[in-house]
Amino acid sequence: MIAKHGGNIYEAAKRYGIKENEIIDFSANINPLGIPDKLKEAIASNLGCIESYPDPDYKDLVAAIAHHNCINENYVIPGNGATEIIFQIAEAVKPKKSLLLAPTFLEYERALRKAGSDIEYYMLNENNDFKIEGEDFLHKLRGEIDFVAICNPNNPTGQIIEKELLLRILMKCKRSKINLMIDEAFIDFLDNQEENSLIDCLDDYDNLFIIRALTKFFAIPGLRIGYGLISNQSIKEKILNNKEPWTINGFAAISGHVLLKDKEYIRKSKEFFKKEKKYMYQELKKINGIKLYKPKANYILFKLLSYPGDLKDMMIKKKILIRQCDNYINLDSSFFRAAIKDRESNLKLINVLKEVVDND
Amino acid sequence: MIAKHGGNIYEAAKRYGIKENEIIDFSANINPLGIPDKLKEAIASNLGCIESYPDPDYKDLVAAIAHHNCINENYVIPGNGATEIIFQIAEAVKPKKSLLLAPTFLEYERALRKAGSDIEYYMLNENNDFKIEGEDFLHKLRGEIDFVAICNPNNPTGQIIEKELLLRILMKCKRSKINLMIDEAFIDFLDNQEENSLIDCLDDYDNLFIIRALTKFFAIPGLRIGYGLISNQSIKEKILNNKEPWTINGFAAISGHVLLKDKEYIRKSKEFFKKEKKYMYQELKKINGIKLYKPKANYILFKLLSYPGDLKDMMIKKKILIRQCDNYINLDSSFFRAAIKDRESNLKLINVLKEVVDND
Repeated sequence: MIAKHGGNIYEAAKRYGIKENEIIDFSANINPLGIPDKLKEAIASNLGCIESYPDPDYKDLVAAIAHHNCINENYVIPGNGATEIIFQIAEAVKPKKSLLLAPTFLEYERALRKAGSDIEYYMLNENNDFKIEGEDFLHKLRGEIDFVAICNPNNPTGQIIEKELLLRILMKCKRSKINLMIDEAFIDFLDNQEENSLIDCLDDYDNLFIIRALTKFFAIPGLRIGYGLISNQSIKEKILNNKEPWTINGFAAISGHVLLKDKEYIRKSKEFFKKEKKYMYQELKKINGIKLYKPKANYILFKLLSYPGDLKDMMIKKKILIRQCDNYINLDSSFFRAAIKDRESNLKLINVLKEVVDND
Repeated sequence: MIAKHGGNIYEAAKRYGIKENEIIDFSANINPLGIPDKLKEAIASNLGCIESYPDPDYKDLVAAIAHHNCINENYVIPGNGATEIIFQIAEAVKPKKSLLLAPTFLEYERALRKAGSDIEYYMLNENNDFKIEGEDFLHKLRGEIDFVAICNPNNPTGQIIEKELLLRILMKCKRSKINLMIDEAFIDFLDNQEENSLIDCLDDYDNLFIIRALTKFFAIPGLRIGYGLISNQSIKEKILNNKEPWTINGFAAISGHVLLKDKEYIRKSKEFFKKEKKYMYQELKKINGIKLYKPKANYILFKLLSYPGDLKDMMIKKKILIRQCDNYINLDSSFFRAAIKDRESNLKLINVLKEVVDND
């Protein structure tokens, strides 16, 4: 079956006999500011747009993405969420052996294995806050490895890779004829996004694939908009040749312009997360019995130091759903991920966690 | 690039410098009654549904589809339009050699080739109204052929296969260990849909895959809802294992119940097409210079007998877009497909066609 992810409140609700709308969902990393009003207005006043087939080339959406990122339109491949692009890249490149971080987002492995690739894991060290260790990682970029996927910031650890190291990895990959996929699906949540993205390297590196999503930042996981940025036109051509037509729905197709131009929503969200991330980290840090990994994005990873029973179960009974991380390689059932939500919800999480795990 | 289909008014508008909304689009076979009001209401009052990830199992949508078709929920695979299901079946089954009608819908070949299958064509005879010739076709179901795709009614010819012949094909396929995919995307437009569908054979035939779409009948090509019906649970499991998560957007996920329960819209549409199909056929028949193929679904194929120049070009200058069929195997640039639309639009098409091709 499909890999287990966060955000499955449907299963949780059914299993525990709670109504879906009574559960506070910390398992999906979605901006709690909610769907931008401008998007709601745009959809409500364009209900008829689904009466036509979407433009198969999604030219308006592509133009909006290119404009927002100040890049060449030819680099843009829009997708049904970031996931479609991940699968399409894997299939177009057909790597022989891929290097993945462990832990990281689960769909890279599914997409790569489906495309016939073997997988090697780079085990991140929990005692080093799950950060990539530069020399050690660079040393792995050799031999049979022909594809590397890096999630930056990494999901579920919330850690970023310093730009300097990223550039060294990119250059080493280029020299070693390795394709490098950088998933920046959560990069909009960073305070200093521009300093961390590899987007400005696209012109010079045809082995670089960047993944982006509008899903999380604009709180639209059900609308399905993501994109890939690729300067290598022969790979892009392969992807377009393989692609199913019309995978992006009509509402999503008209949303790119509306969302990416909504500077006020973007500003407010960034401001909100800067403050709330700090608050959440400070408050959770006060709880004994958990180890925190300092968050860069809009979610926080923590480890239960002493095991008080089934934490996920105890939390859901209090109508709080968190993401147990036991199906990530290199994590186990003592690791949990929680989204950073609105203050009221965050307070509930903090208080319930205190109640349940604080053994002080 | 992606195969050329009907419905690309974006390209036509750009190329001829006409506004998209000024073009009457006969190239996409969409119900002219338009999106059901009940769907518009449901979307408008559920704009927030895209703020959550869709249920990865789409249980509500699956239940609505199963209920509508009176079949087991386990047989249903919902998809991002019928196209996703076609690609998923090809990939799960990985046929060695597939038999396709020529002409037929173009995505079967793309999906099957992508999955590594060789293709053999069964050339339909224009002098026999592009109908399958029973004994001849049955004779082909042998040797290396391990997959057959049949579109019923066939697109772009608009012809159906009699149920008796279909059953013989199904049985022969079963005996010869051939998987049979029947695409019933346009079957809702038939007067006697139940008599033509193979849906009641699912229980007994694990080599049968049925494709359905809500796209055309409910006028929602931009919403993206289709489904597959498969009793073979091991193939279904393979499809679910390969599937990307959340390919169906949140609005589509809530639409199944609304649409399939809208008996009034369904009744009105069926009544409308019964009348309008007849009218269109009678009127077009009066035009000299074209050969008509009697339509069963909501579109009509015709052939220009004498070539008056570039018909598509001449029509688009009158702001009418028709589907030139030159990229179908076994058709050429003298074949065109036009959707059956509302009476006013149909009259325009008839009159412009008379003006342009009638050489009486």
